[in-house]
Amino acid sequence: MNAEIIGVGSELLLGQIANTNAQFISKGLAEIGVNVYYHTVVGDNQDRLRQAIETAEKRADLIIYTGGLGPTKDDLTKETVAEYIGKTLITDHKSMANIEDYFEKISRKMTENNRKQALVIEGAEVFPNHHGMAPGMAVSHGEHIHVLLPGPPSEMQPMYKDYLEPFLLKDMGTRERIESRILRFFGIGESQLETDIEDILDAQTNPTIAPLAANGEVTLRITAKHETSAGAEEMIRKAEEQILSRVGDYFYGYNDTTLMKEAIALLKERKWTISAAESLTGGMFQEELTGIPGAGLILKGGIVCYTNEAKQKLLQVSDSTIKEHGVVSEACAIEMAENIKKLLGSDVGISFTGVAGPDELEGNPVGTVFVGLALPGREPFAKKLNLGGMREGNRVRSVKYGCHFLLHQLKQ
Amino acid sequence: MNAEIIGVGSELLLGQIANTNAQFISKGLAEIGVNVYYHTVVGDNQDRLRQAIETAEKRADLIIYTGGLGPTKDDLTKETVAEYIGKTLITDHKSMANIEDYFEKISRKMTENNRKQALVIEGAEVFPNHHGMAPGMAVSHGEHIHVLLPGPPSEMQPMYKDYLEPFLLKDMGTRERIESRILRFFGIGESQLETDIEDILDAQTNPTIAPLAANGEVTLRITAKHETSAGAEEMIRKAEEQILSRVGDYFYGYNDTTLMKEAIALLKERKWTISAAESLTGGMFQEELTGIPGAGLILKGGIVCYTNEAKQKLLQVSDSTIKEHGVVSEACAIEMAENIKKLLGSDVGISFTGVAGPDELEGNPVGTVFVGLALPGREPFAKKLNLGGMREGNRVRSVKYGCHFLLHQLKQ
Repeated sequence: MNAEIIGVGSELLLGQIANTNAQFISKGLAEIGVNVYYHTVVGDNQDRLRQAIETAEKRADLIIYTGGLGPTKDDLTKETVAEYIGKTLITDHKSMANIEDYFEKISRKMTENNRKQALVIEGAEVFPNHHGMAPGMAVSHGEHIHVLLPGPPSEMQPMYKDYLEPFLLKDMGTRERIESRILRFFGIGESQLETDIEDILDAQTNPTIAPLAANGEVTLRITAKHETSAGAEEMIRKAEEQILSRVGDYFYGYNDTTLMKEAIALLKERKWTISAAESLTGGMFQEELTGIPGAGLILKGGIVCYTNEAKQKLLQVSDSTIKEHGVVSEACAIEMAENIKKLLGSDVGISFTGVAGPDELEGNPVGTVFVGLALPGREPFAKKLNLGGMREGNRVRSVKYGCHFLLHQLKQ
Repeated sequence: MNAEIIGVGSELLLGQIANTNAQFISKGLAEIGVNVYYHTVVGDNQDRLRQAIETAEKRADLIIYTGGLGPTKDDLTKETVAEYIGKTLITDHKSMANIEDYFEKISRKMTENNRKQALVIEGAEVFPNHHGMAPGMAVSHGEHIHVLLPGPPSEMQPMYKDYLEPFLLKDMGTRERIESRILRFFGIGESQLETDIEDILDAQTNPTIAPLAANGEVTLRITAKHETSAGAEEMIRKAEEQILSRVGDYFYGYNDTTLMKEAIALLKERKWTISAAESLTGGMFQEELTGIPGAGLILKGGIVCYTNEAKQKLLQVSDSTIKEHGVVSEACAIEMAENIKKLLGSDVGISFTGVAGPDELEGNPVGTVFVGLALPGREPFAKKLNLGGMREGNRVRSVKYGCHFLLHQLKQ
C-alpha cells in the first residue's frame, strides 16, 4: 500500500504554519510499513482541491487529508471529497451529541454553523473526535481509501493513534513489517557521533541507520524490514548493540523519551522528591516537569528567582555570596540548590543561574550557566556550561543539561 | 505569477523533519505578491521527481525546489531538472573555489564527491551559497522559471533573501502589491466570530479575510491587492475598522504578537512589576514571560507551588483557606496572588490554581481553573474558567486567560 498526504488550508500556503501534520502521519505510516511517496498542500479552494484529489488517485492507494473539517465556509474537504466520489453528506448523530455536549460543558451558546461539523460522508467509517468537535472518517472509492482527519494537531494526533492506525493495520493484514527504533544521545555532537560509527553507517542496508541532530541532541533511527515483527526487532537489537558498544556513554533512551522523562522515572524508582530554583530558565525546568502527568508525586515546587531580590527574599541566598561571587557563579548555584531543597524539604534540589542573553551579565559572556545539584548523602555541587548560543536555545539547553547531570547522578 | 514549492528528500516522507522550507518560502512569496497554490514533497527518487515536475509545470509559472543539491548519490534535483528541460550540467568555477576554500578553512581533505556540488544547469543564474557548499540557481524553461535551493534552512533562508527575492522582484517589474495583516482575538470561539461577521466574510473579494483558529485563539488574516502598497494598506485599514466595530472587544493585537507581549508592553508603560504564584501551570507563565528579552525589568520572580506543602511553606497560604475552600477555589487563588505580591513587593501578583488533568481534584472536573489577580488600588479577585480540555491545553489556555485578564485590567 502506498499513501499520499494532502494538507488542506490556505494558512499553509501563506506560510502561517508548517505542515507538521504530514510529518506526524508520515512517521506513523513508516512504522507500520506504508510507503509515503508524496505530500501535497492545497488551499481552501474547491477546484484546486478537486485537482489534487485527481492527481493523488493516479499515484496513491491511500489518500489522507488533514484540515478543512471545521465549521466555517472555507472548510471544504468533506464536501469536495464527497462530490468527487459521488456520495452525499449525512449527519452523524454521535458526533452531533458530542458537539452539543462540548458547548454545554464550556457554557457557551452553540452557533448554527457548528452543526456542519457533524456531517460525514455516507458509508464512511467515522472516527470520533475526543479532543474537539469535527469527527474524522474513512471511505472507500474503488481501489482507493480516502481518510479525512481534522487539522489541529491536538485533535488529529490522538485520532490517528486511536482510530486510523488500528483501521489501517486491520485492512493490511499480514505484510512485510517495518520496525524502527530511535536511540537518543546527549552530550555528543552529530559529526563526532557519525565519525565514531562511520563504518557501521557506511555498511548499512537493512537495517538502515539514519542520524539526525536537533535541539542539542542527536538521534539515530534504526529501521529494519523483515517478514515478522520479531525478526525485525532482532535485527534492530543487534545493530543497537554494535552502536552502543562505541557511543553508549552518551545514550540516554529510546524513541520519544526525553532527558526529563528519564530523570523522573529514576526519581520515582528511588521515591525521591525534587524542588527547583530557577533564574535564567525562568520556570522552564518545572514547566517541563509538570507537563508530565503524575509530576505532583515528584515535584514539591520551586522558586523562579529572576531578580536578585527574589533570590534573597524568597530563596534566602546570602548577601555575601552575591557580593563576593555574583549571581552567575558556582557558589550561588550551590546555595540556590541547597536552599530550595531545605525550604521545601525535598530529597533533591536543582538550580539554574546564568546568562541567557542577549546581553552579558557580571562580565560573563552570554551562555555562561551554572547548574547546581543538592542530593542526599553527598556535598552539593555545581557544573559550569559554556553554551554560547542564542537566548531561547541557551535556556532550553540549560534545562537539558540539568536533566543530564541529574540522570548521571541517579544512575550511579 | 503563481508558484509551486517542491520539497525533495526522503527524510520529509519518513517524517524525520517537517517541511519548514515551504513555510518560509511561502511567507516570503506572499509578501511580494506571488500566489502559492501548491506545495509538493517527493522523495529522493528520479522517476517520481520527474512526475512532480511535469505536474507542477501544468499548474505553476514559478517552480521552487528545496533539497537534493548535496554531494551524495541520492541528491538528484539538479540532474533531474536539467534532464527534464533538456540542458546539461557544467562546473561553476566560483562555486568550486568556494568549496575548496571551505575544506581548507576546516583543515579537512575534500572528498571527490564534493565536486558534484559545484555543477550547475547551463544557462542558469547562479546564487552563491555563503553558508554552505551547494549553490542555488534559476533557469528558464519556456514560460516557466525553475529555481533550485539547498535543503538546510541555514543555507536556504539567507539565499532566498539575498538572491532569490531580488531576482523575483526584478523579474516581476512593477506589479500588483499584496499586503496582509493579521488581527488576533481571544475569548471568542471561531464559529461565534464568524457568525458575528458573516456578511463581511460573504462579501469579501479584495481584500480577502481568512479566519484561523489555533491554541484557543482566533485570527483573521486580511489580504489586499492594489497597485501600490499604500493603496493596499488603506483597503486593509477599512476592512479592519468594519470588523472591529463588531468584535473589537475580543481583539488584542496584530500579526505575531501574543497576549503575553501585549500585557508586558502595558506593564512597562505603567512601570509596574509583576510576580506569579503557579500551581497547575507549573511555571509556564513565568517561563513564557522570561522568554522575552528584557523581562527582568518586569518580573520580580515567583513560586511554583505544585503541592499544598509548597503553597503553605513558600507562599504562606493559610491552613484555613485550604481546609475550608480547597486549593481549587476562588479564595485560594486570591490568597496566592496577594501573598506573592506582598512577598516580592511587586505591583501586580498573578496566580493560577486548578485541575490540569488527567484526574479530577477535590471533586472539581478537569479544566476547572481559578486565575487570581492582585493589582494596585483595588481588591484582589479571581476568575473561574471551565476549560474542559486536555492537560497540556488546559495549562496553555490558563496562561492565556491570565494574560487576557491582566490585559483587560491594564487597559482600564
